[in-house]
Amino acid sequence: MHVIADVCVVPLGVGVSVSKYVAACERVLSEAGLKTRLHAWGTNVEGEWDAVLAAVKRCHEVVHSMGAPRVSTTLRLGTRTDRAQTMDDKVRSVEEKLSASR
Amino acid sequence: MHVIADVCVVPLGVGVSVSKYVAACERVLSEAGLKTRLHAWGTNVEGEWDAVLAAVKRCHEVVHSMGAPRVSTTLRLGTRTDRAQTMDDKVRSVEEKLSASR
Amino acid sequence: MHVIADVCVVPLGVGVSVSKYVAACERVLSEAGLKTRLHAWGTNVEGEWDAVLAAVKRCHEVVHSMGAPRVSTTLRLGTRTDRAQTMDDKVRSVEEKLSASR
Amino acid sequence: MHVIADVCVVPLGVGVSVSKYVAACERVLSEAGLKTRLHAWGTNVEGEWDAVLAAVKRCHEVVHSMGAPRVSTTLRLGTRTDRAQTMDDKVRSVEEKLSASR
Repeated sequence: MHVIADVCVVPLGVGVSVSKYVAACERVLSEAGLKTRLHAWGTNVEGEWDAVLAAVKRCHEVVHSMGAPRVSTTLRLGTRTDRAQTMDDKVRSVEEKLSASR
Repeated sequence: MHVIADVCVVPLGVGVSVSKYVAACERVLSEAGLKTRLHAWGTNVEGEWDAVLAAVKRCHEVVHSMGAPRVSTTLRLGTRTDRAQTMDDKVRSVEEKLSASR
Repeated sequence: MHVIADVCVVPLGVGVSVSKYVAACERVLSEAGLKTRLHAWGTNVEGEWDAVLAAVKRCHEVVHSMGAPRVSTTLRLGTRTDRAQTMDDKVRSVEEKLSASR
Repeated sequence: MHVIADVCVVPLGVGVSVSKYVAACERVLSEAGLKTRLHAWGTNVEGEWDAVLAAVKRCHEVVHSMGAPRVSTTLRLGTRTDRAQTMDDKVRSVEEKLSASR
């Protein structure tokens, strides 16, 4: 089962600057061979369900090992059985609607 | 790794009434032996990471098998290494602060 | 426009214990005259859109005033035009499906 | 109060193809004069709290007026009082950490 996900990992108990933890998660996702796209509130990621979710677990383990006693993640998970779709397809589909209406 | 999660599964392409799909997910989570607590915007669930996430995957499979071509889930995942905590502890902790201030 | 929301406010930069901030938000929502229901990962709240969203803004202001330099909130917002629905209706609807299948 | 938000609007009861509704929301946010950045699971948006939240309300109104009887939105909201930060700053900060570690 293919999934397009959006992952936002928030470490608690390490102050207000969280970018190094987010960067570590970005590396975990990339090293898992997943396609990622960083944005201002998380990272889009796509791949097989098990690979994506194993990488999210690894993010928690890594952020804890970096010293964060508490990790709070929000995850959006989208699957579909009607057709194949990539995260680029999703963005392109909206952009085409925007262009068409101009 | 113990996780306290919050799962909200939204089936697309099956009309506006989604309660039977949510009930099916509720059964999946319970049958996985996980402690659950239903609320108006999802279900709190706690357990070992792998068991919780396997059950969420199973929810997607079941909702697809019920006829939903597309499933969109939001998931909150909380882990901590400083101490053990249950979902009842989390609620009680807030309620104690509320009582103390009255 | 009536909305059923789910609010989870996370203060950053104040350590791992966040219950007093959550309790403060709970008070803000109640004092705004909104119906609330606390769970382990946030608070269900319902009311008129403007009243609910004004209360969420007030939560951010209050949590900042309590000393949190950064506040990160996740919010689910549901509106419908086909029929009136309360958060109790949503829970009851799922519970009825669960009972019927036993 | 400045906010960096992430908005994901999901219309229910209109089938599986939701891109035209997402495009409509994108236009609402842009026409409100807000800076936006579309990704595969929503749109980053930043601005003054009241302007951002008024635009999100307008998204619900517009998507309902396009025929969706039910709209389900997830919103992430980040505010901070310690320093000014844009959504570009957030992405750049993570990218710098990634470059530094290569």
